Amino acid sequence: MQPRTTFDLSTPALLIDLDVLNKNLRTMSLHHPGTRLRPHTKAHKCTSLAQLQLHYGHKTFTCATPREVIGMAAAGVGEDLLLANEVLNHDRLSALARVARTTRVTIAVDSQNTIDAAARAGLEDVLVDVNVGLPRCGVAPDDAGRLAESARRAGLTVRGVMGYEGHLMMVDGRDKRRQLVAESMRLLAVAARNVGGEIVSAGGTGTFDLHDDTGINELQAGSYALMDTHYARLGLPFEQGCFVLGTVISIGEKWLVVDVGLKALGMDHGNPSVAGFDVLFCSDEHTTLAPGKDSTATKTSVGDKLRVVPAHIDPTMAMHDNAWLVRGEEVIDCWSIDLRGW
Amino acid sequence: MQPRTTFDLSTPALLIDLDVLNKNLRTMSLHHPGTRLRPHTKAHKCTSLAQLQLHYGHKTFTCATPREVIGMAAAGVGEDLLLANEVLNHDRLSALARVARTTRVTIAVDSQNTIDAAARAGLEDVLVDVNVGLPRCGVAPDDAGRLAESARRAGLTVRGVMGYEGHLMMVDGRDKRRQLVAESMRLLAVAARNVGGEIVSAGGTGTFDLHDDTGINELQAGSYALMDTHYARLGLPFEQGCFVLGTVISIGEKWLVVDVGLKALGMDHGNPSVAGFDVLFCSDEHTTLAPGKDSTATKTSVGDKLRVVPAHIDPTMAMHDNAWLVRGEEVIDCWSIDLRGW
Repeated sequence: MQPRTTFDLSTPALLIDLDVLNKNLRTMSLHHPGTRLRPHTKAHKCTSLAQLQLHYGHKTFTCATPREVIGMAAAGVGEDLLLANEVLNHDRLSALARVARTTRVTIAVDSQNTIDAAARAGLEDVLVDVNVGLPRCGVAPDDAGRLAESARRAGLTVRGVMGYEGHLMMVDGRDKRRQLVAESMRLLAVAARNVGGEIVSAGGTGTFDLHDDTGINELQAGSYALMDTHYARLGLPFEQGCFVLGTVISIGEKWLVVDVGLKALGMDHGNPSVAGFDVLFCSDEHTTLAPGKDSTATKTSVGDKLRVVPAHIDPTMAMHDNAWLVRGEEVIDCWSIDLRGW
Repeated sequence: MQPRTTFDLSTPALLIDLDVLNKNLRTMSLHHPGTRLRPHTKAHKCTSLAQLQLHYGHKTFTCATPREVIGMAAAGVGEDLLLANEVLNHDRLSALARVARTTRVTIAVDSQNTIDAAARAGLEDVLVDVNVGLPRCGVAPDDAGRLAESARRAGLTVRGVMGYEGHLMMVDGRDKRRQLVAESMRLLAVAARNVGGEIVSAGGTGTFDLHDDTGINELQAGSYALMDTHYARLGLPFEQGCFVLGTVISIGEKWLVVDVGLKALGMDHGNPSVAGFDVLFCSDEHTTLAPGKDSTATKTSVGDKLRVVPAHIDPTMAMHDNAWLVRGEEVIDCWSIDLRGW
């Protein structure tokens, strides 16, 4: 039976507030219209949501895994897919090369090994991934030009550079954040000059409005669509659009238990939040809550439903088979989280 | 193509060391033979692994979700399935009642609401879940007898009690842990006398050897089969049997990056471990490592494979579609993690 309201849903159930989602997508598309935004599918892993981003004018997408690229192409969403990650596995790269016959696929490279692997699999388009301060992937800025030459010698088309300033997303204070982003992007700009190509890709939700003068021509943001409590701290103009609906299954002496646990929530940013309650701890299938001060939580009964707000949206989405689109308590639609896995 | 060795696997890939798994299952089955152990499927979510537990003599199982019960029954593994969790949703309870026509299904109750819901759905067998100190589910010990009477009035068969001393699993010092477990189980024993029935079910991997005199007649352990770095701290006689295989995809100035991130690892117990390296941080699809002191890690190259050891086994299993059974680097088999979800 198709559920009509959230009261009909078995729990835990992933909810997406459709009005908030549309508002967030609209806000971002006004700031970064069209290809100025390359929405990151890793934040939602859902081709239906990507289809809505396409509706808002974005036809280029960022992916973190081969599975995301292959799934987006199979769903026919987007016409220019960037795998902003390094891949060595020949089978996966060959699968990407097959996708590239019909949809433009570009992959990040940051070493001779990744160049050789891409060329061997028959891929054509690459970006040079440049380290701009986050200790993760990316070639040192000074080596980017040399690496681009090597890629061209291997027969690859170098479309430009990318550099993710992930270490700056949560820097306190917008002015401080802007200054550090500018410094980081100067590294990318130097690399871009030496590499050539038309793409200078960087950024994320936390720095979405700090790139007016940094020289990048596309932003790789994803979390802005649905948000989480971690990004909420920055006071960005995006609202919480994703919740995990739970049922109160037990009420103890001074606490109550909702059936949303750490298998339904990305936990790397810490505990989730529930309005009106303090979260005591999460276990596999439970979160134990205490009524917050000044709350009406003491009126809660066994069987009531509560919305749990994840601390980190990306891994939370990856834990669910599907998401229920809601407007208030009305259930509008159900989307498959179809880009899970690798 | 069927992979022959771990070098053929695309990553991240969940590995189970078959010899270690067998050793862990054997060790536990010697300590708690037959129905003295009710293995918890939530720790592995895999009917093939449960089938091996059955081979070691355990034919009763514990589950945490309706999906686990339904999947175990569909696979024909086990003849007495306990859902050690409270469920209110009528559709899910009705599905469990359908399973109960062919496989014995018992569900935990800890309130009048959960009793009413079970009875309404046509379920027959329940255990009274007793709170033995962990602030989560379970009726207060003094109320257990009254609740059992109420369940019987509702037409349910009360098979006994369960009480999970989860707050004691990681208590430092075996003697201290033993003493606190004994105190906790005295609460369960009082409830058991008032409730009646034949089952007194409790315990977990961390307290598996502390129940000789506590009066319980079955232990609900799961993590012992595959282990994790969290439980490893206790010095139990179980070895690490599960790893997430990753590929080194990038090497930076003072670090290297493996393609196993927080979407492939349960993160609620903190960062994973990698032999010979210090884990700096995890992001969605990456873990950044620094060579440890006295390590040969500096010889690592892009393309090399590393084994990442999860800090928490249960949520890690729930993130993967399947697990590769290995002996050394040889790939023996592939098991579906078929009990994921709710």
